[in-house]
Amino acid sequence: MNDNKIILTGDRPTGQLHLGHYVGSLENRVKLQNDYKQFVMIADTQALTDNADNPLKVRKNILEVVLDYLAVGIDPKISTIFIQSLVPELAELNMYYLNLVTVNRLKRNPTVKNEIEQKAFKESIPAGFLTYPVSQAADITAFKANLVPVGEDQLPLLEQTVEIVRRFNRIYEPVLVEPQALVSKAARLVGTDGQNKMSKSLGNAISLADSSEVIQEKVMGMFTDPNHLRVEDPGQVEGNPVFIYLDLFDPEQEEVEQLKAHYRRGGLGDVKVKRRLNLVLQDFLKPIRERREEYSKDPKEVMNILRKGSEKARAIAANTLAEVKEAMKINYF
Amino acid sequence: MNDNKIILTGDRPTGQLHLGHYVGSLENRVKLQNDYKQFVMIADTQALTDNADNPLKVRKNILEVVLDYLAVGIDPKISTIFIQSLVPELAELNMYYLNLVTVNRLKRNPTVKNEIEQKAFKESIPAGFLTYPVSQAADITAFKANLVPVGEDQLPLLEQTVEIVRRFNRIYEPVLVEPQALVSKAARLVGTDGQNKMSKSLGNAISLADSSEVIQEKVMGMFTDPNHLRVEDPGQVEGNPVFIYLDLFDPEQEEVEQLKAHYRRGGLGDVKVKRRLNLVLQDFLKPIRERREEYSKDPKEVMNILRKGSEKARAIAANTLAEVKEAMKINYF
Repeated sequence: MNDNKIILTGDRPTGQLHLGHYVGSLENRVKLQNDYKQFVMIADTQALTDNADNPLKVRKNILEVVLDYLAVGIDPKISTIFIQSLVPELAELNMYYLNLVTVNRLKRNPTVKNEIEQKAFKESIPAGFLTYPVSQAADITAFKANLVPVGEDQLPLLEQTVEIVRRFNRIYEPVLVEPQALVSKAARLVGTDGQNKMSKSLGNAISLADSSEVIQEKVMGMFTDPNHLRVEDPGQVEGNPVFIYLDLFDPEQEEVEQLKAHYRRGGLGDVKVKRRLNLVLQDFLKPIRERREEYSKDPKEVMNILRKGSEKARAIAANTLAEVKEAMKINYF
Repeated sequence: MNDNKIILTGDRPTGQLHLGHYVGSLENRVKLQNDYKQFVMIADTQALTDNADNPLKVRKNILEVVLDYLAVGIDPKISTIFIQSLVPELAELNMYYLNLVTVNRLKRNPTVKNEIEQKAFKESIPAGFLTYPVSQAADITAFKANLVPVGEDQLPLLEQTVEIVRRFNRIYEPVLVEPQALVSKAARLVGTDGQNKMSKSLGNAISLADSSEVIQEKVMGMFTDPNHLRVEDPGQVEGNPVFIYLDLFDPEQEEVEQLKAHYRRGGLGDVKVKRRLNLVLQDFLKPIRERREEYSKDPKEVMNILRKGSEKARAIAANTLAEVKEAMKINYF
């Protein structure tokens, strides 16, 4: 156990988690929790920055997300799972950090710029959305996280945190810890449509909670090589989501290599490959789904896990806030 | 006592208060506290939005401002005097309200626009400064204030609060109270230079804490009518700060009218009028300064007043926050 390494990670509770989350982060968290002190935040406050008119969506997905966490094996005995809004110290830190960042700097953040374009806010960007990287700096520094797992596209968010930490430590006292990115090697998982990254809102996701029937239906409807029209045609393996998933989830990788060779030279039909993928994913997702169903029988107990985790997280954040206020000399009593 | 009327007012602790504050707000607060439930906030968090690199200035002026309050007769037994940063619920409300306002709306706020120009931020506007009207909405609504004393120039700030309240009540549940402006009839007090409104940073202010000698020195050095060169010349009363102060502070208003007539027709020297003003201000400020000195002998007890007031304010803000979270359906437990 590497006690001086602290990880902060988490998700916005806006939908059930899917295979893309598994490959991109959940799998990693399950491993990391054994070697690091890991905080897993359900970022409800952050989710509200672009869901202010639909808080019920955020509310109901808190339970969904934590069920996904528990189902894949994030262990609340060793990882601290908590709800962002239950740690009000994060809002206080956010207030103080907002003064250390300029509006123009926030507007130049490439991640936020991209998201603003994607979400088609146009001229109506909520102030909370523009400033959410500052709130993230509060989340990361509150737990003195020195490692933050991110995708390449999120690196600018972490840079913003580093800037705030440096500015704070220079103006006041060096109490904040500068975090480092733990860049995920796994590329973003492509969706079943083969076009975009997997995303619930694009309808190209296989959720961890999907039933056996839904998985089969989604797999059999997957995009493959559009030029592979007849079985005897040679097919393309690169960028073909069916083979991408087999690479990731099939335990028999030698057989997968043989299948790829067959597919390339022609004579292997999509349906056959999809049937294999279906079996592979059914095997992979069944124990996850079963654990999920088991936990979901007692939602009170699950919420209790979050309550306890949030209390633990709060105590740590309160400590940091006290240090921050002392460094700023605004500890009046 | 008009129990259903609640007032929120306050000051940024960036300097001692002066005659301009007295005329513009303090005098009014001393009266209003008898008829309304009055909250007086020392806005340290807000002061940090443009003093982030000098928090000691904010810290030390908290005591100065509360001494001024007590000296003029704001009574902590009937008014709740508190420190903004000691009510963390305000930071939480701010987080949620930030999602209800667009960045462009904040940039159009005339008060903030003016201040940004005055402060010469240029391209480096701190995000906390641009968003401080949202934080003010948190302050006002936390106490369900329905009356907010403001100068004409601050009306756009209150409009921003009203917009947030309406948006919140429409999207969620109508739990927030829409405040009304109590526009101060007193125009901004001109400084001793006769050019600008009284302001410590412009060096044209007479502070409530100024010693007898300093008052005399400032009064005798005041700007008058620049064309009133010789005693026998006719002088101008309008816009002449010496007469403006006499109008406001001299209890013998008939004599002031006679003096004005004399000054207008010529034969009344500036020194003579200033000597009178000096006596008037000495009489006015002496009891205030003496009470201030009395309180300043026991700064611990004064800070204790703030601690108690902040606890009281916090309990009320916590109630509102609970209602807000319930309305937003983010009360998970």
